[in-house]
Amino acid sequence: MTRRPVIAVLEGDRPVRGLERVARLADVRVTRAAGLDRALAGADVLYLWDYFSGALPDAWHAAGSLRWLHVAAAGVDKLLFPDLVASDVVVTNAHGIFDQPMAEYVLGAVLHAAKGFGPLRDAQREARWEWREGRNIGGSRALVVGTGSIGRRTARLLRAVGVRVEGAGRTAREHDDDFGRVHAAEDLAAVVGAFDYVILLAPLTPATEGLVSAAVVAALKPSAVLVNAGRGRLVDEDALVARLQAGTLAGAVLDTFAVEPLPREHPLWSLPSVLVTPHMASNADTWLDDLAAQFERNLLLWLDGRPLPGVVDKALGYVPSTA
Amino acid sequence: MTRRPVIAVLEGDRPVRGLERVARLADVRVTRAAGLDRALAGADVLYLWDYFSGALPDAWHAAGSLRWLHVAAAGVDKLLFPDLVASDVVVTNAHGIFDQPMAEYVLGAVLHAAKGFGPLRDAQREARWEWREGRNIGGSRALVVGTGSIGRRTARLLRAVGVRVEGAGRTAREHDDDFGRVHAAEDLAAVVGAFDYVILLAPLTPATEGLVSAAVVAALKPSAVLVNAGRGRLVDEDALVARLQAGTLAGAVLDTFAVEPLPREHPLWSLPSVLVTPHMASNADTWLDDLAAQFERNLLLWLDGRPLPGVVDKALGYVPSTA
Repeated sequence: MTRRPVIAVLEGDRPVRGLERVARLADVRVTRAAGLDRALAGADVLYLWDYFSGALPDAWHAAGSLRWLHVAAAGVDKLLFPDLVASDVVVTNAHGIFDQPMAEYVLGAVLHAAKGFGPLRDAQREARWEWREGRNIGGSRALVVGTGSIGRRTARLLRAVGVRVEGAGRTAREHDDDFGRVHAAEDLAAVVGAFDYVILLAPLTPATEGLVSAAVVAALKPSAVLVNAGRGRLVDEDALVARLQAGTLAGAVLDTFAVEPLPREHPLWSLPSVLVTPHMASNADTWLDDLAAQFERNLLLWLDGRPLPGVVDKALGYVPSTA
Repeated sequence: MTRRPVIAVLEGDRPVRGLERVARLADVRVTRAAGLDRALAGADVLYLWDYFSGALPDAWHAAGSLRWLHVAAAGVDKLLFPDLVASDVVVTNAHGIFDQPMAEYVLGAVLHAAKGFGPLRDAQREARWEWREGRNIGGSRALVVGTGSIGRRTARLLRAVGVRVEGAGRTAREHDDDFGRVHAAEDLAAVVGAFDYVILLAPLTPATEGLVSAAVVAALKPSAVLVNAGRGRLVDEDALVARLQAGTLAGAVLDTFAVEPLPREHPLWSLPSVLVTPHMASNADTWLDDLAAQFERNLLLWLDGRPLPGVVDKALGYVPSTA
C-alpha cells in the first residue's frame, strides 16, 4: 500500500472514541449521515460507530473503493442491504464485546422474573407491603436460542448458578461444550414446553424472523418466562401479548421489540408480568472504550493483511460460531 | 421414654404442613397463640411453625417440661427472650433451608441494581423509553457481612459469576474456603469503602445491632450498593436514607427493616434508587415442605437421642458456623 488508507467514520449523537491512534495510521474522515457519501468517496474502510444508522444504502454509490466495513454492534440485520451483501466488502462486527453484559442481563432478567421483582417494585411505588414467594432458579431449565458467542457466554453463566441449560441453533447436535444438547430451531414448538426460561439471543435473519411463532408461543408452559435480548422480530409479539394478557404465561423480560422505541400505546408497557428495557442489555461499563479498542486492533490486523476476527457471513447474516 | 412425647405446634395464618408422620411418633397439639400455654403444659417439644409469633414469653410459665424448641426460621432474634436463654431448652432453627433462596435473592438484587432495573421499571410504568447503561458485575467486589451458612452459599454463588467476594464476621481470618479474606466486623468502617456491593446476611444479636453504623454508612463509596437481607436493625436506617436522599450512594436493595411491615410513610418506599421487598428473600418454591421435612428429620434424631443439626448458641444468638 503506497498511500495512507482512508477511513470514513460515521458518527451519530454519541461522539466517536479512540480515533487518536487510528489517525496516526490512516486518513480519518468523521462524518454524520448527511455527509456519508462525500466521506466514502475514495475510502478504503467504513467504520460505523453509529451502529443504528440506516444511511449507508443512499450513500452506497460512492463506496466504490470500499474494502472493509466495521460496525460497532453485534446485530447486523439493519445493515445488510442487497448491494452490500452482493459486494466484496468484508463486514466485521463487535464480536465478543457484548458477551459479558448480555449474559449478565439475561441472568438478571431470569432472577428478576423468578423473584417477582417487577410486581414488588410496582407495590413499592404505592407503599404496599405485599408479601409474595419467589422461585428458585437453581435446578430450573433454560433454553438459549442462539448459539453464537453471546449465547455461549450466557449458557456458561446460567450453568454456573445451577440452571440446567440447553441450546437451540440451526442444526441439532449433542455434546456441545456449552449447551450439551442443541435443538434444531425448526423444532422449537416441540421442545420449548420443557423449559422454565426461554432466552432469545439469535440474530435476526430471514431464517430466524418469526422463529418464535404463534405455535411456539402457544407451546410455552404456563409457568415459563420468555427473555428476548436478541431482536423483537424473532417473536410473534401479538401472540406473546395475547398469552400474557390472558395470564397463561408467567412473564417476559424484553429488551428488543419489533418497533423501537416501543410505541407509547403498545400493550407490553403496561403488563405487570413484563419487564420492558430499552435495548440496553449489551451496554455496560467500558463498552464504548472496548468498541474503540477493538476497531484499533482490527485496523492493525487489516493493515498487515492478516485475518480479521468477527467477519460476518453476509449470506447467513451473522458471525458463524467457532465453537 | 415410656410415654409418647408431646409436641406443641404453634400455627399462624399459614397452616402447618407435614404433621401426618409426626403424629405417628408423638402426641401433637396444634394451637394458635391464644392457646399456647395450654398446649405447652406437659409438652416436651415446641415447634414454632409461626416463626414470627411473639407469644412465647407470655406462655412460658407453662413450659416447665419443655426440652426442645424448633423454629421454622433462620433468624431467632425475635424468639430469644431471657427466660428461654437461661433455660436448658435446646433451640434449633431451619438451618440450611434458606441458603439457596437467600443466595439467589442477593444475586438477583446485585444484578437488579447493576442493570438499573428499578428505574427502568419506573420508566416502563409511564411508557417512557429511556435508555441507560448498566454495569457489569463480573470483576466487581462484594463484601458479605455474615459468615454463616447463608453467607457462605451467597459467597459461592457470587463467585461463580465472577464477583470478587470477601467476608466480614466476628473475627478476622485469611484463607477461608468461601470468602478468602474475612474481616472483623468491628473494622467495617475501615474496609467497606473498597467494595461495590455490601451485603448484610448477619443475624441480629446484641453484638450486631447497629453494626452498619452511621460511620460505616458514611464510608460506603458513592457507587456502592447496600443489600440487606439480614435484619433491618443491623443498619442505621436514618444514615442510609440520608445518603440515598442526597444521591451520594448508588442504591440499596432491602428485604428487612427496623420496623416491619415498613410503615407507609417511610422515605425508603419512594427512593428510586432503592428496591424494597417485603421480607421474602428466604421464601421460594418448596420452602414450606422443606421446613416440614426438616422438622420430621430432626424429630427422628431427637427421639433417638442423637445430636440435632442447627442448634442455636443462645448466648451468641445464632447457629455458629461449622466451616
